[in-house]
Amino acid sequence: MSIFDEELMRLKEKVLIMGSMVETAIKDSVRALVDRDNQLAKTVIENDHKINTLDSEIDEECIKLIALMQPMAGDLRFITTAMKITTDLERMGDMAANIAERAVELSEEPILKPYIDIPRMREVAQGMTRDVLDAFVKGDKKLAMDVIMRDDEVDDLRNTILKELVFFMVQDPSTVTRAMKIIFVAQYLERIADHATNIAEMVIYLVAGKLIRHMALPETEKK
Amino acid sequence: MSIFDEELMRLKEKVLIMGSMVETAIKDSVRALVDRDNQLAKTVIENDHKINTLDSEIDEECIKLIALMQPMAGDLRFITTAMKITTDLERMGDMAANIAERAVELSEEPILKPYIDIPRMREVAQGMTRDVLDAFVKGDKKLAMDVIMRDDEVDDLRNTILKELVFFMVQDPSTVTRAMKIIFVAQYLERIADHATNIAEMVIYLVAGKLIRHMALPETEKK
Repeated sequence: MSIFDEELMRLKEKVLIMGSMVETAIKDSVRALVDRDNQLAKTVIENDHKINTLDSEIDEECIKLIALMQPMAGDLRFITTAMKITTDLERMGDMAANIAERAVELSEEPILKPYIDIPRMREVAQGMTRDVLDAFVKGDKKLAMDVIMRDDEVDDLRNTILKELVFFMVQDPSTVTRAMKIIFVAQYLERIADHATNIAEMVIYLVAGKLIRHMALPETEKK
Repeated sequence: MSIFDEELMRLKEKVLIMGSMVETAIKDSVRALVDRDNQLAKTVIENDHKINTLDSEIDEECIKLIALMQPMAGDLRFITTAMKITTDLERMGDMAANIAERAVELSEEPILKPYIDIPRMREVAQGMTRDVLDAFVKGDKKLAMDVIMRDDEVDDLRNTILKELVFFMVQDPSTVTRAMKIIFVAQYLERIADHATNIAEMVIYLVAGKLIRHMALPETEKK
């Protein structure tokens, strides 16, 4: 294996590590909300800077990799996509921290209702996050498309939650503050799923672009 | 001026063109909402693919520029940042198209109330979009910081709109569907401002990173 291939493998590993940190943040933020566990919420908020640091680190490594190795078109595209993906992952981490903040606030007030659809949204969004990174490192277009399909389910759940909470607010104005915070949580989860969808689109573009390049370029440029 | 510098200038121009298309989309989407102008709303929705196309085009040009010109660290960082910025711009265009869709839906129902804070939010978000791209092409850290400061104003306006519309919903449940759509518009504008803020952070990192590099690297690597 060439030094470049080793570096590329290390890059993939780092992106996957960042992805699993974001996955943990998503899972723990919603668990903190459901279990009213402020300690866990604070851990999510505190750990967010680690995700941010990893984003900068990966960025720096990608720049170095391009500058020193001068990779060919296909690999170059892979590396610039990695830089974009980590930007999305970093923002997904921010959304998880936002959920944790709302969890702390909501823990100070009486329970409005048991959470059913929020954990379901979390489950789908977290699965999309895991699978889209898998699709990226494996170049799996089909899996990326599957992630995009699941975004509708998240939107539907968000709409169900909205309708239900609006009903609460209309019936009893004393629920408004709490209901709005839960609506925010649903929207943070929706944005996490949106980011996963955006990553999936980039993966499809990356894989398709490579294929097109393979067909169009002279033999010397192929990998 | 070297061929590389010319290419870099062309890249900056293209990013600014994309930025002004997004600015127009933001402005027109809110004008369509306020004036109940469905024709204008449809134009915004139809034009969104042009913004998407420009994003792909700039991406391709950046890849080519890196592959053919093998730019030094500072320029390389500028180009990879351009690729990330256009991803944000593309999503800001999506948000404007979403506003236009809600404008069409709302035009079919009675007016809930005159729009005051939404146009104000639009004004701030549009100004942030314009200024952050200016900061990017000029490497103006101070202007980028100024953009970040303005995000609070957008968040405050969003909260004002939310409170007011929740009040409407609580007072009169028949307003719920319309109120929720206006809340969505406020959130699309908030997300546009978030994207501008994210771009501003990237600009600051780009400018600061350059400065650090200038100090740390040997003479041969300086630009």
